[in-house]
Amino acid sequence: MPELRQDPLSQRWIIISSERAKRPNDFKLRPVEPHVGECVFCAGNENKTPPEIWAYRSPGTERDQDGWWVRTVPNKFPALGIEGSLNEHMNGLHKSMNGVGAHEVIIETPRHQIETHQHSVEQMQEIIRMWRDRHLDLRQDKRLKYVMVFKNEGSDAGASLEHSHSQLIALPILPKAIEEEIDGIKRHLEAANRCIFCDMIEQEKQDYSRMVFESESMIAFCPYASRFPFEIWILPKRHEPDFGFIRENEIQDLGITLQEVLARLAGTLGSPPYNLLLHSTPVNTDIGVSYHWHIEILPRLTKAAGFEFGTDYYINPTPPEIAADSLQSFH
Amino acid sequence: MPELRQDPLSQRWIIISSERAKRPNDFKLRPVEPHVGECVFCAGNENKTPPEIWAYRSPGTERDQDGWWVRTVPNKFPALGIEGSLNEHMNGLHKSMNGVGAHEVIIETPRHQIETHQHSVEQMQEIIRMWRDRHLDLRQDKRLKYVMVFKNEGSDAGASLEHSHSQLIALPILPKAIEEEIDGIKRHLEAANRCIFCDMIEQEKQDYSRMVFESESMIAFCPYASRFPFEIWILPKRHEPDFGFIRENEIQDLGITLQEVLARLAGTLGSPPYNLLLHSTPVNTDIGVSYHWHIEILPRLTKAAGFEFGTDYYINPTPPEIAADSLQSFH
Repeated sequence: MPELRQDPLSQRWIIISSERAKRPNDFKLRPVEPHVGECVFCAGNENKTPPEIWAYRSPGTERDQDGWWVRTVPNKFPALGIEGSLNEHMNGLHKSMNGVGAHEVIIETPRHQIETHQHSVEQMQEIIRMWRDRHLDLRQDKRLKYVMVFKNEGSDAGASLEHSHSQLIALPILPKAIEEEIDGIKRHLEAANRCIFCDMIEQEKQDYSRMVFESESMIAFCPYASRFPFEIWILPKRHEPDFGFIRENEIQDLGITLQEVLARLAGTLGSPPYNLLLHSTPVNTDIGVSYHWHIEILPRLTKAAGFEFGTDYYINPTPPEIAADSLQSFH
Repeated sequence: MPELRQDPLSQRWIIISSERAKRPNDFKLRPVEPHVGECVFCAGNENKTPPEIWAYRSPGTERDQDGWWVRTVPNKFPALGIEGSLNEHMNGLHKSMNGVGAHEVIIETPRHQIETHQHSVEQMQEIIRMWRDRHLDLRQDKRLKYVMVFKNEGSDAGASLEHSHSQLIALPILPKAIEEEIDGIKRHLEAANRCIFCDMIEQEKQDYSRMVFESESMIAFCPYASRFPFEIWILPKRHEPDFGFIRENEIQDLGITLQEVLARLAGTLGSPPYNLLLHSTPVNTDIGVSYHWHIEILPRLTKAAGFEFGTDYYINPTPPEIAADSLQSFH
């Protein structure tokens, strides 16, 4: 069972991951796993993953057999485990609890494809439907307070397998990053009586210098205080706290927008590594304020180093206006 | 002039670094700069750096000439500039100010040496004296609120030149990471009426399972909620908020401790990349509470990826007790 430990100073939680336990020699070897021959995520190798949780598959095909187009399985080396209770424990300064939660892998295509922007728009939309379905399913477990979908693309962004996949981690605690956002939403609500994300959409549309792409219900721009070069946020224009309640027309537009934006990013920068984060409101928790779900795309062209870790500020060598200008004009 | 921009949501400041401005093609090239022939930090090449700010050098030798053993110069590509005023500015949601501050490089040895633990203890102590001297000098500029010394060792930890050096950035704002620590100190003070760092020292000494090294005035341990495998903190046993007020016996002990701990880290893991952060109390600012300066060493054996950026939590595959056990027994 993994262990959650809270830093008494920052109140940051750390997952001490027993499933992935590493002793010094594991680091010395520094194994790189290039794709040689068989890929465990490819169709036909369903028996090489843990048994599937959910899949979109052709009528008449069997679970854990070929015939699917998006497939969700448990992570083979889960950071959190679904069994047991939290058992919060205090020892002097040190708070801990059991690492209860879920860690799933969404295999985005049965074929061996590496880059997300290579999906057809229809496939992208199916992947978004899977994210939504897993979101709605996991929140039925009332121990869970947050469901986070994310994607690591490229080994410099932390991907260990190259076949296109996203991940989902469900947590029994609120992420610090989300608590900070909630504080920001509250601050702006008190000051302006408006949703800060709705105001962001308005300001970016008016200003236009950081806009990347717009569809009927979605907007994509490089945020004003981008932490990373070519950082891109995608927001639904309709104020909605909960990604689980995304509407069918929004799924369609998000598919179009994501595919377009990722293709432009790949074309402009030569397929850079990136992390994609889906931020949504906490589940089974009253946060006393109305969140606005969105996606953040963080290209990993610079290295977070001493300055970033020591301050939690970032040095970004590319003004978002320059990034947006390149992304706007790319075809 | 670099620009500081504040994210309206998280209130995180971002340095938009004009001196390092990068357009898409700069990333496509991905230049790696291996050490071929001349190193600009080696003795004899003093004219290849900006003019020196401060150096420890033999009597009779000239500024920007050979004869030094620790030498501080301005960063050639500074993230912040020392000229001008802050000019805080608001545009709708977006706050900005001029990137006023200092960015210095401390060249730790005149010889071409790559790993910090290779310094003699005496040299390590001289480097610490330089950190202290620069700390005390920069705070005379009342616009500056924080002086941060740090070190990136190895290219995976963000180093761009291999010759041993540390960096110093002085900021006109408090780092978010330090504000969080101050909040943690306040919380513990209210609850226990004690310094949380002093309590940490006591608990780690009693528990002993995470202890790495102890000298008369310094203690080194793997923190309970380590974000990174083999993370190590070094704390002075004497409660002192301000690194600038480090005493001579503490400089000597810190030199011994740092050299020993870094040598064990290198020996145990095969010279891993790491970031070293020196945390001290803000300058020219009343924070209403008593800080406790310390050093954090963050080995970069794992990659911060989607989970870490999306939550501000970390997955650490090596329990600090296992890390400390290896580091204790290494000789």
